[in-house]
Amino acid sequence: MNIGIVGLGLIGGSLGLDLRAAGYQVLGIARREQTCVDAIARGVVDDASVDLALLAAADVVFVCTPISAIAPTVQQLIPHLSANAIITDVGSVKKPVVEALEPIWTNFVGGHPMAGTAESGLEAAQTQLFAGKAYVLTPVKTTPPAAVNIVEEIARSLKAKIYQCRPEDHDRAVAWISHLPVMVSAGLINACINETDPAVLELAQQLASSGFRDTSRVGGGNPELGVMMARYNRGELLRSLQQYRTGLDQIISQIEREDWNALQGKLSINQQTRPKFLNLE
Amino acid sequence: MNIGIVGLGLIGGSLGLDLRAAGYQVLGIARREQTCVDAIARGVVDDASVDLALLAAADVVFVCTPISAIAPTVQQLIPHLSANAIITDVGSVKKPVVEALEPIWTNFVGGHPMAGTAESGLEAAQTQLFAGKAYVLTPVKTTPPAAVNIVEEIARSLKAKIYQCRPEDHDRAVAWISHLPVMVSAGLINACINETDPAVLELAQQLASSGFRDTSRVGGGNPELGVMMARYNRGELLRSLQQYRTGLDQIISQIEREDWNALQGKLSINQQTRPKFLNLE
Repeated sequence: MNIGIVGLGLIGGSLGLDLRAAGYQVLGIARREQTCVDAIARGVVDDASVDLALLAAADVVFVCTPISAIAPTVQQLIPHLSANAIITDVGSVKKPVVEALEPIWTNFVGGHPMAGTAESGLEAAQTQLFAGKAYVLTPVKTTPPAAVNIVEEIARSLKAKIYQCRPEDHDRAVAWISHLPVMVSAGLINACINETDPAVLELAQQLASSGFRDTSRVGGGNPELGVMMARYNRGELLRSLQQYRTGLDQIISQIEREDWNALQGKLSINQQTRPKFLNLE
Repeated sequence: MNIGIVGLGLIGGSLGLDLRAAGYQVLGIARREQTCVDAIARGVVDDASVDLALLAAADVVFVCTPISAIAPTVQQLIPHLSANAIITDVGSVKKPVVEALEPIWTNFVGGHPMAGTAESGLEAAQTQLFAGKAYVLTPVKTTPPAAVNIVEEIARSLKAKIYQCRPEDHDRAVAWISHLPVMVSAGLINACINETDPAVLELAQQLASSGFRDTSRVGGGNPELGVMMARYNRGELLRSLQQYRTGLDQIISQIEREDWNALQGKLSINQQTRPKFLNLE
């Protein structure tokens, strides 16, 4: 089976490494010639080109561009593809992608491999990036089951854990556990640096340790990624942020009223519930 | 030099292990006989008792009880101490402790070794717990410099990094980098578990990975510790929470207005600023 990959960055490059190792023929598309040369040299792809026409031979195409480029890329790709080719993507928000592509390509299967590192680009590509990680597929009513099965089979060869759900359920779930944490964590750094007494600010910087480091990690990451989450998952993120804000106001009110029993109750529920969210660890 | 330790839990026990290794004679006080027996058996102390009279021979006493017990413990301790004995504590909030003890014992030096693990109790005591960690001393105008020097010398023997500041500056700084993160993180767990669609909640639990794990860690910890922070550092914690809430409202508003430039600016400042808070790593 020939697999096409459009976009040879961290995700596209890592897919290429594992899919070649699994025995697939991998054809890569990059915007820059040099990336094609590098990808072939690193063994990420069997062949690569800046010309989408290379993918005429592809049975399945993984679109691994930033979310904003997925639909325009597929539009450009369609004239080059065989009629039975399957297209899938790796975008971290699914509803807008599926809504854009489902009407224009029957054999489209939305996908989200939930793996990554702090790095980006082809240099960061690595084998086994997806092993043990969640890989969510979001077929809709019109998606041909045969296409879903083939994408699932390929994802299984990456040793990923496969989940299937509706695009809107995916987006709501990742708002809670991925996009909301980024904004909550961003707010923490943002608040601390507003300390107006320079001596206290310096002391805070000196005394900060693992608690601050962990809580601030995702909020201090790639700004483009944060904006992308907010932009494409705006509705679900706002919904989760409003819920968060209501809960935060309750905590503030409990502390203001010195209602230590209520605060203790809230923190106890958290302590009991958090392990349910650590399935993948 | 004889060092007394009142309270043989994680902090008191770990202090005992390192101070004995550094050549000090260590006398321990616990509430339960069995803890005294265990502490001697583990080599945490040279001698131990449930009776504070053991500390008549102590030159320096570390009070390692929960914050609420520090002042009552010192009241009970005073009749047994030699007139020149130095008292220090390990409480994670300093202003209320210093205000309670400064009027009743001249040779009192407020202290906060910023080390710990997720465990508690004597069984969790370990060597080198304080090595490379911050140890804050909070002398006030009336504190005898000789007493400060002696406590600092002992803290240095633990290989800790010593900081000196006013009790109120300590409390404001730790509100930002320790107590605010706990509440921010607690709010995250609290919000997620309010998802009303059971299928989405289950999916969120399945898909949660390192981002959720890190951001929720301190908010899913010991509830008693969280309440203690809120109770004893209430003013500073509320101040930091109000500032946090204002910043969060700005983020929400930027997403509502789709002001992606403003959001990108905020996230970029965070990315640039966060490393300043990672000095101790």
